[in-house]
Amino acid sequence: MSGWLDNPVEGVLLDITGVLYESGEGFGTVIPGSVNAVQRLKEAHIPVRLVTNETCDTRSAVVKKLQSHGYEVCEADIFSPVPAVVSLLKERGLSPHLLVHPNIEGEFSSLMKGKPTCVVMGDADEGFSFANVNKAFTTLMEMEKPVLFSLGYGKYYKHKGKLQLDVGAFANALEFACDIKSEIVGKPSPQFFGAALKDMGITADKAVMIGDDIVSDVGGSQKCGLRGVLVRTGKYIPAFENHPVVKPDFIADNLAQAVEMIVNAQKAKKA
Amino acid sequence: MSGWLDNPVEGVLLDITGVLYESGEGFGTVIPGSVNAVQRLKEAHIPVRLVTNETCDTRSAVVKKLQSHGYEVCEADIFSPVPAVVSLLKERGLSPHLLVHPNIEGEFSSLMKGKPTCVVMGDADEGFSFANVNKAFTTLMEMEKPVLFSLGYGKYYKHKGKLQLDVGAFANALEFACDIKSEIVGKPSPQFFGAALKDMGITADKAVMIGDDIVSDVGGSQKCGLRGVLVRTGKYIPAFENHPVVKPDFIADNLAQAVEMIVNAQKAKKA
Repeated sequence: MSGWLDNPVEGVLLDITGVLYESGEGFGTVIPGSVNAVQRLKEAHIPVRLVTNETCDTRSAVVKKLQSHGYEVCEADIFSPVPAVVSLLKERGLSPHLLVHPNIEGEFSSLMKGKPTCVVMGDADEGFSFANVNKAFTTLMEMEKPVLFSLGYGKYYKHKGKLQLDVGAFANALEFACDIKSEIVGKPSPQFFGAALKDMGITADKAVMIGDDIVSDVGGSQKCGLRGVLVRTGKYIPAFENHPVVKPDFIADNLAQAVEMIVNAQKAKKA
Repeated sequence: MSGWLDNPVEGVLLDITGVLYESGEGFGTVIPGSVNAVQRLKEAHIPVRLVTNETCDTRSAVVKKLQSHGYEVCEADIFSPVPAVVSLLKERGLSPHLLVHPNIEGEFSSLMKGKPTCVVMGDADEGFSFANVNKAFTTLMEMEKPVLFSLGYGKYYKHKGKLQLDVGAFANALEFACDIKSEIVGKPSPQFFGAALKDMGITADKAVMIGDDIVSDVGGSQKCGLRGVLVRTGKYIPAFENHPVVKPDFIADNLAQAVEMIVNAQKAKKA
């Protein structure tokens, strides 16, 4: 048995895009074996939560997409930055200027009151126009103490088969221009992983995170004490296997292989 | 006499925008006293060079603009990143992909040969569209060893009376996404200040740089051993006077005041 499974696995966190399905036209294409893998975890009574930095869609739209691929999931299974930042803004009484995808703007409607006191940026996709990025910049510069929330902090992802800049790149642009650091909501923020673990009622050392992002998924979860597994699907590139900083606990060809090993290890322990 | 003038000044480097004129519609507006100030330096036989990160216009267009405001300048007086990067690319046999203002694309025409082996980015203004920034990103990612040149590295500047993101912000976005560092051509690169000093035939300790950018102009020149003077024109904001890192050798209301002091100090020494 591999070393990464010496400790029992009592809960699994999964990234969505690139692990459950590949993005593409429409709903994208399901990754072979992944639907069955999620099913096997459930049958083995290993709780599963989906932790995504996806901010181009609402959670209900993500559920719809996953169900169309055959996944049995509900909104409560999904941890996404949007509900997390909405409750954070409520808590701190902040009114956001939005640099986000039009699909999720509605989620913030109750918070838009008067002059913005912070900027919230997510993966705005083509919404990262010069005018929009510059407007976010000037809005920050008009604040006495600029506050910037970045929903995730990814470098890039795969979109319709091609690499595309993610929110982290544009967050860096604004951080540099305004001489500030953004507050990250989503992976790899420890609060974000923590919320999903708390929901499963387990500690970090009992959990495994499986994802295709070497930094946000693997490195981020490892920093929080989880085991981080990289899959060779989604935006995976071979260079991830020689990352200068992050060493995955295991590298699986895909979700199906990782789950196979987790379930077999559980059986071996019970035997 | 102020301490910053205890050593003689044998040459002056001037930033252009925000020191000689304020940007705005058309050619912008001249800054009162600046034309006369440049004239006084010439009359005092103190050589002057203009060091600019301006990459929205060719040098000949900049000369035309300055002449329209009454300045007596020629192309040879102007040190700008474009000719500097063109000779660098020739030297290293690199073929650029361009993320620059359309006005200066022509300057690179002789270098565009086959597949790009580097990306050159300047202040592209509204050319920093999502499509263009993303294209520069994917072009870098396709290179075995991505090479990025940033023409200057400013955070922002004043454009038609409003702050606007400069090339440094977008350079940071690409650096983060590709895990690389850009090679800066222009201020605050020591090679750039060095070329202007060499042209005047003086050493750094004999020269003063006057500009409205606390980091590129003042901090950059000080690192090279020049005296750095900040002016309260252009993109100046009061916060510059309490910059956490850079302490200007002197802060002048405008170019006229700084030159007045330099010329008077020279007279006092001769007397």
